[in-house]
Amino acid sequence: MLTPIFLKFVLLSMISIVLIGTGNIATHLFDTFLLYDTLNVLQVVGRSKKSLSHFSNKTATCMLSSTIKKADIYIIAVSDDAIPIVSKTIEHLNGLVVHTSGSVSLESLSFNKNSGVFYPLQTFTKGAKVDFRKIPICLETKEKEDLKTLHFIAETISDSVYEISSEQRQHLHLAAVFVNNFTNYMYTIGHEICDDNKVLFDILKPLIKETAQKLNTLEPYEAQTGPARRNDIETMQRHLDQLKTKDQKKIYKLLSETIQKKYGKEL
Amino acid sequence: MLTPIFLKFVLLSMISIVLIGTGNIATHLFDTFLLYDTLNVLQVVGRSKKSLSHFSNKTATCMLSSTIKKADIYIIAVSDDAIPIVSKTIEHLNGLVVHTSGSVSLESLSFNKNSGVFYPLQTFTKGAKVDFRKIPICLETKEKEDLKTLHFIAETISDSVYEISSEQRQHLHLAAVFVNNFTNYMYTIGHEICDDNKVLFDILKPLIKETAQKLNTLEPYEAQTGPARRNDIETMQRHLDQLKTKDQKKIYKLLSETIQKKYGKEL
Repeated sequence: MLTPIFLKFVLLSMISIVLIGTGNIATHLFDTFLLYDTLNVLQVVGRSKKSLSHFSNKTATCMLSSTIKKADIYIIAVSDDAIPIVSKTIEHLNGLVVHTSGSVSLESLSFNKNSGVFYPLQTFTKGAKVDFRKIPICLETKEKEDLKTLHFIAETISDSVYEISSEQRQHLHLAAVFVNNFTNYMYTIGHEICDDNKVLFDILKPLIKETAQKLNTLEPYEAQTGPARRNDIETMQRHLDQLKTKDQKKIYKLLSETIQKKYGKEL
Repeated sequence: MLTPIFLKFVLLSMISIVLIGTGNIATHLFDTFLLYDTLNVLQVVGRSKKSLSHFSNKTATCMLSSTIKKADIYIIAVSDDAIPIVSKTIEHLNGLVVHTSGSVSLESLSFNKNSGVFYPLQTFTKGAKVDFRKIPICLETKEKEDLKTLHFIAETISDSVYEISSEQRQHLHLAAVFVNNFTNYMYTIGHEICDDNKVLFDILKPLIKETAQKLNTLEPYEAQTGPARRNDIETMQRHLDQLKTKDQKKIYKLLSETIQKKYGKEL
C-alpha cells in the first residue's frame, strides 16, 4: 500500500504543464522547463501560428479557442490586461491556474477554483539567455495545498523562492519600477549627455556595474555619494547650467533636492 | 651614447610619485601603485598623523606644511575645493602636478607650470577592494609632452585609458551623477518601499544587477520597459496611490511623464 508520504512523492515527481502565452516570459519559462525531466510541458497555447513557431517543434501547440489539454497546472504568461479573459476561457478546466504578473492580484483569476501566482522577478529580453537559478520566484496560492506544486516547480528551476502575498507583490513590483525602469532611464540620460558632448558612454559602464555591485556590501542609503549628498551647491548649479533640456534640468533638480533633504540633518 | 628613444625608455621605466591626500581615492591609488615596481611612491602627504597611519609603515609621510620630496609627479587626491590651495602650496616644486577630480578644470592648477588631470572614473568605498585594471582613467595635460608620463602610470594600472578634455570631463562627471548618484537613490527608494511593506530588498538584487548588465547588449534607450514606457495609465495611477511620501510621488510622476513623452511618438 502507498503511504501518504510516498503518494506525495509520486504526485510531485512529475508535473504536467500547459503554458498559455508566447511572449518573453513564456519563452524563457518554456526553454527552462525543457531542461528538467520532472517538468513536462504538454502544450503551449498562443494567439497565432506565427507566435507558436518557437514552440511547435518541441511540444504540442494550439490556439486559445481550440481544445486545451488536461494538466496539473496552467501557467498564464500573457499581458496584464489579458489575464482575466484567459482565466474565463479556461474556467471549465480542473487543475491549478496561475499567472506570472508582478502587478495583477490573485483575485483576477476568480473564474478558476484553484488559483495562484508564479512571479519571476526579473527583466526579460528577447533572445538574451537567462539563468533562472538566480531569479527570485514569488509564489502565492488561494488554496494552501496548492503551494507545494508551485514550490516544486519553482525550486526545480530557481535557488530563490519566496512566498509573497498579492499586496506585498504589488509593492515589490512598484519598488522594481524604481530600481529597474527608472534606473534604466538614468542610464538613458547619462547616454544622452555623453552623445551630446562626444564622449563614449562605454567609459561609464564600469561605474554603472560597481554602483549595482556595491549593494552586496552596503545599503543604498549608506552608499549615497555626489554633490547633493554633500550639499555642494556650486557643483549642482554648474551641472544645472550644463544640462541641455528642460526635462533633464527638472529631474536633476528634484532628485538633488530630495537627496539634500534626506541627508540634510547629517550635514 | 644613449639614443633619444633609449633615454625616453629609461625616463619612463620608473616614475617617482608624491601622493597628496589620504582619502578614499588616495588610499586606493596608493595600494594599487604598490603592486608595480615601476611606480615608486616616495612620500604621502596628509593633514594629520592619524590620516597618514595607513601609509606610514609602507613609505615616507609628512604634513603639507613640511618638506615635500622632489618627484616626477605630484598627484593631488583631495576634496575639490582644496585643490587650488594645495596647488599654491607646492608651486615652488618642479615636476608634473595633477589632480584626480572629475569636476575640477585643469586651470585650477594654475600655480604649477606642468599640470594635468588623472581622473579614475569609479565610485570608491572605504575598505572595499578595487580592481583598477577595469577602471577607466581619463587623462589631460597642459603641456603635450607630459601626456606620456600620465599614460605610463595609467596604463600600468588600468586597461582603459582615455584622453579627455576638461570640458568633456565635466560632462562625463555630470553623466556619472545620473548613472551613479541618482541610480543609487532609485535603489534607496526601492529599499524604502520594501521596508515599509515588510518585503526583503534582497529579492530585488538580481533585477538590479541584470538592469546594469543589460547595457552589454542593449542601449538604455532600447532597454526601457515598465508602465510609463507602455503608457499603462492604470498601473501608474495605482502606483501613485501606493506610494507613501510626497517626494516619492513627485519623483514617480516626473520620471513617468518624461518617459511617456520620450516614447510617446512610438505608441
